[in-house]
Amino acid sequence: MTEAEFLDGLRRLPLHPGAHGLADDTATLGHHILTTDTLVEGVHYLATDPPEDVAWKLLAQNLSDLAAKGATPAGVLLNYPLRAAPPSTTPADAGAQSGNDHEERLRDITSTAATGPRRSPGWKQEEDWDAAFLAGLATALSHFACPLLGGDTVSLPPHAPRVLTLTAIGADAAAPPRSGARAGDALYVTGTIGDAGAGLAIALGRDGPAALLAAYRRPQPRLAEGRALAPRVHAMMDVSDGLLIDAQRLAAASALAVTIDLDAVPLSPAYAAHVGTDQAARLAAATAGDDYQLLFAAPADFAPPVPVTRIGALAEGAGLTLKHGAQALPLPAKLGFQHAS
Amino acid sequence: MTEAEFLDGLRRLPLHPGAHGLADDTATLGHHILTTDTLVEGVHYLATDPPEDVAWKLLAQNLSDLAAKGATPAGVLLNYPLRAAPPSTTPADAGAQSGNDHEERLRDITSTAATGPRRSPGWKQEEDWDAAFLAGLATALSHFACPLLGGDTVSLPPHAPRVLTLTAIGADAAAPPRSGARAGDALYVTGTIGDAGAGLAIALGRDGPAALLAAYRRPQPRLAEGRALAPRVHAMMDVSDGLLIDAQRLAAASALAVTIDLDAVPLSPAYAAHVGTDQAARLAAATAGDDYQLLFAAPADFAPPVPVTRIGALAEGAGLTLKHGAQALPLPAKLGFQHAS
Repeated sequence: MTEAEFLDGLRRLPLHPGAHGLADDTATLGHHILTTDTLVEGVHYLATDPPEDVAWKLLAQNLSDLAAKGATPAGVLLNYPLRAAPPSTTPADAGAQSGNDHEERLRDITSTAATGPRRSPGWKQEEDWDAAFLAGLATALSHFACPLLGGDTVSLPPHAPRVLTLTAIGADAAAPPRSGARAGDALYVTGTIGDAGAGLAIALGRDGPAALLAAYRRPQPRLAEGRALAPRVHAMMDVSDGLLIDAQRLAAASALAVTIDLDAVPLSPAYAAHVGTDQAARLAAATAGDDYQLLFAAPADFAPPVPVTRIGALAEGAGLTLKHGAQALPLPAKLGFQHAS
Repeated sequence: MTEAEFLDGLRRLPLHPGAHGLADDTATLGHHILTTDTLVEGVHYLATDPPEDVAWKLLAQNLSDLAAKGATPAGVLLNYPLRAAPPSTTPADAGAQSGNDHEERLRDITSTAATGPRRSPGWKQEEDWDAAFLAGLATALSHFACPLLGGDTVSLPPHAPRVLTLTAIGADAAAPPRSGARAGDALYVTGTIGDAGAGLAIALGRDGPAALLAAYRRPQPRLAEGRALAPRVHAMMDVSDGLLIDAQRLAAASALAVTIDLDAVPLSPAYAAHVGTDQAARLAAATAGDDYQLLFAAPADFAPPVPVTRIGALAEGAGLTLKHGAQALPLPAKLGFQHAS
């Protein structure tokens, strides 16, 4: 089933009014904002990424959804898999688990770590990853002043990709919807775009500056900017899958057309030096993911309370138009990252 | 890392006061109770279990934690992995993904389902599972009058075990702690014990009655009983890992000793007929998991508002004593299910 088909199925379930028809990144429950994100090893992060950075990203990605609502983090829940080490090569270990009945077969499937040699190379490797993840989570929670509320720890069979889930709850949110943009609004974005995309290429082995790698590995959710902007904008979301695809989503949710001026897309000095500022470099930036900047619609005469860049406009109609000066550009084949679609 | 070691690590993180030191199954945030549980294919459920039942169990297990607090379900978040089908055997498919740069490699890792033949046997199998899971979730959410609030859908590589997470939020909870038992309290349990354990053996291929299989596959969280009991008991939790191990945990959390009368453990007629009522059958029931009954401590002269069975007593001291009439029994080697410990 594609993600779109699965989402259609979810929308036919009994939905809470605070689910907003599953059309937003967050849900509303009383005075709280809820969001949850799952990272899969090999899909959302590289097996070779430092575990400290994976922990940071897991938290940052969720807090970015809260930032887009202008919420303050209240706490998080963590669902963590403890992966078993591969079976020991010592055949004697198998005997330690003999005599079990049917029930035990199911339950002992991942108990290798407990019954096998405790300090085997495989066990040590898993243990080191877990410890580094915990250290990274401690750093990230302290950095964002966000406490742990609870969670669940489960066993995972050897070799299975880790699946990490974090659920974040925010409070005191002005919570502008994704769908509130009005014809005539300007489109704005915080920070710079494309750094994390260039950083991913560096993580995969390309040479490049540390600042870009850091943008990929340690994204900075715009919590302060979100709190300042949320009460004053018409629509807001975070840029997670790519500027173009996310702008298109904001416009579609608001039943409007959006035009983006490619030359206005803000690039960092590091990006400009490493990738360039020509049209190809700008398109690469605008279609890369993991920016975690805030994208919002506000009146054209809006006086922003924090530094932002005006990159386009919303109007009656539908669809995305990309402009380079006065010239309309053909849209790239991929506007950003689409999940299993 | 063992679960105990990982939990120790989590306890050193910045904790929310509502995390209750991570010593309870739920967290408290304002007027809400939060709980989250993850099911791993091959660990918490069988790959051959019907997907409808897996969806039911995922919800029921979380709602059981809310029941133990006397909470009413307010909504749930679902984290669901859409697993890609194994790569097609047609070599031409590989060419469809050529020309990608480094970033694409990471992102296309699970896109086989989208780019491969849409109705390959493997794709159809995954799609059928997803559809059946959705149908089962619809049934379960309606049954428990619990709406969906949101969630996250992610891609999973072919062959990876599914990792399913559900987070439930409850309201209006009296929320008795696990740690509130007092010396002199009696120990009570709702319903009958051991049915799901016997049902697991049937799911694994043993012959047996449908009622026991249903107890394993469609557990019934005791929400109504929880609401009636919660304001009137000293301590309460649900029995998920086994009556003996969970009773020991309740006593330990309350810094008390607990004695359980094995003959008083309530068995269903189906269990009695299928497994028996002798000491071995009673021990099997008291150490099997997945009962999802409520276990609670209340004064010895407590008049229960719902049908319950008195199975033991709490006293000054520590540890678990098992009795058969006046005779103390040696404790079995395993009191229940312990995760990767």
